[in-house]
Amino acid sequence: MEKKITTLKDIAKELKVSIATVSRALQNKAEISVQTKRRVKAMARKLNYQPNLLAQSLLNKRTNTIGVVVPEIKSHFFASIIMGFKDVLRPLNYNLMVCQSEESYKDEVKIFENLLRVQVDGILVSPSSATTKFDHFLNLQKKGIPVVVFDRDSLGFETDKVLVDDYMGAFQAVDYLIQSGCKRVAHLAGPHKLSTTKHRLEGYVDALKKNNIPYDEAYIEHVKGFSHDDGLKPAKNLMKLNPQPDAIFAINDCIAISAMHVVKKLNLHIPDQVSIVGFDDEPHSKYFTPALSTVWQPVYSIGILAAKILLKQLQAETLEPPFRKEIFTPELLIRASSKKI
Amino acid sequence: MEKKITTLKDIAKELKVSIATVSRALQNKAEISVQTKRRVKAMARKLNYQPNLLAQSLLNKRTNTIGVVVPEIKSHFFASIIMGFKDVLRPLNYNLMVCQSEESYKDEVKIFENLLRVQVDGILVSPSSATTKFDHFLNLQKKGIPVVVFDRDSLGFETDKVLVDDYMGAFQAVDYLIQSGCKRVAHLAGPHKLSTTKHRLEGYVDALKKNNIPYDEAYIEHVKGFSHDDGLKPAKNLMKLNPQPDAIFAINDCIAISAMHVVKKLNLHIPDQVSIVGFDDEPHSKYFTPALSTVWQPVYSIGILAAKILLKQLQAETLEPPFRKEIFTPELLIRASSKKI
Repeated sequence: MEKKITTLKDIAKELKVSIATVSRALQNKAEISVQTKRRVKAMARKLNYQPNLLAQSLLNKRTNTIGVVVPEIKSHFFASIIMGFKDVLRPLNYNLMVCQSEESYKDEVKIFENLLRVQVDGILVSPSSATTKFDHFLNLQKKGIPVVVFDRDSLGFETDKVLVDDYMGAFQAVDYLIQSGCKRVAHLAGPHKLSTTKHRLEGYVDALKKNNIPYDEAYIEHVKGFSHDDGLKPAKNLMKLNPQPDAIFAINDCIAISAMHVVKKLNLHIPDQVSIVGFDDEPHSKYFTPALSTVWQPVYSIGILAAKILLKQLQAETLEPPFRKEIFTPELLIRASSKKI
Repeated sequence: MEKKITTLKDIAKELKVSIATVSRALQNKAEISVQTKRRVKAMARKLNYQPNLLAQSLLNKRTNTIGVVVPEIKSHFFASIIMGFKDVLRPLNYNLMVCQSEESYKDEVKIFENLLRVQVDGILVSPSSATTKFDHFLNLQKKGIPVVVFDRDSLGFETDKVLVDDYMGAFQAVDYLIQSGCKRVAHLAGPHKLSTTKHRLEGYVDALKKNNIPYDEAYIEHVKGFSHDDGLKPAKNLMKLNPQPDAIFAINDCIAISAMHVVKKLNLHIPDQVSIVGFDDEPHSKYFTPALSTVWQPVYSIGILAAKILLKQLQAETLEPPFRKEIFTPELLIRASSKKI
């Protein structure tokens, strides 16, 4: 029996739409709805439609390239998540293109435009701290390009998300500090606007509440960025308070190290006089003196899961609700920079 | 006077070539030499040639996207260089696409194929430690895509390069350790094959020579990678030697921190019994106890210069020799992990 070659007509017939619609859908034309595009492409795959070369370059918008958009690549945190992406996607021959928004909304919008232009198959994104509108996310999603959000939430933009329970991580850390005997736990909070900052601050406040410790705004300093230098002045400000804090919970390890440095300079003993707890468990954190207590996040698993969810979206026929929201729970690691209970 | 519209014919006339050649050159056809392409494009720009839309998408291969290929993004080192790229290229509306080879030759080749596919305007690359053939570099260069190599040399592949004098950095560090009274300086060297490893090892050997200290291979251990864990076993091996080293010069700060950890566990005093010097000056290195002596590299300046050189290549009419080789000199930072002279 001769092998039957699938034509646009066959696809049109199966779906009860016009040949023109099939052709336009395969060319990703704007006038065709996302749903129809997905249906047509799914049927094309099912019938093993082999387009001619010209059509192929149009149909086969598949570039096997995944755009990764992160606020920065400097931290071990995002680098480890990206490692998870890579371990899922590289064996399937996907290439990753990593772009940094550097916490700028404008840059993030540009990056999305560019990723659309180079026709990425999908996007894994952790929004910048300055991003409050998500039209650029929605725009790509509407064009049928799957967008999976990880680590930082995109409030108001619905898609599959892989997040960490920042609230719980902070709550556990602060509750533990109080249990260990600390009475004045200060917080070096993250930059304003960032969902992570907000959730960790809420965890901090609620842990105080649970332990009947009055909340005092003076014991909270926001850092402007996540480098060591960003932590120094806010940490000094906290240590000038009267009464002095006997514990500092920092938004991340880098800032915690700055706090440690400031406290040591004041000739105060860590942890006897001041306990310090960070967040992230950077690879070098256990090598500081004293070794830094911190909240560990399952970074690699976040990367693995987000990439797997993206793969599912790539195979899905529609990008429509209900979307998944996976939330990982972080884990407190008690080391020498804080007291044992 | 009516404004004259430039046509393919005008360009052909100026250059004394056929219209077909001009057209093919603007379409980047393979049969046209790189030199002719550059000449035609330069003339097209000079005459302010405005192609029609179809031609434009072919001519205007400019995508304003620069591919950045690095072995890894986890380290502050590459992240800071990328920051330099960004500060030069973003104001000119270039987008960066960062790809990690993860020290794999195969991955690097794939990345280059992909960057060609998405039609980057140029590439900034630091080769993987496994890369000894550079055909994939040459292939893109032949297609008229500028390739600038930074940090690690691409032996045998000629292009503009921005490098660091690794030899000198290592020589200075080891010479200083000997001057400070150390008699048995060991070296935690990088992975084999890597140009950086080779040059730093040469600096180490020559510094011993200069000071009439016999070279003993037993005092060199190569690490397999650049994470903390990679440094632990080799550092332990060095400390098992008899006589024990009284100084360790490590390939980078991360490995130096592992060495510090191992030495502390043996209850040896740093620097009285063992001096330790790293390479890179990671941002957290000064916060360790004792603060880590290290060799600082002008990472940000490397990024700035490499990006500027790429811009020049983008504007050049040919990608031909002579190429530039810019070599930065690193600087020794003496902190508390090594003795004062």
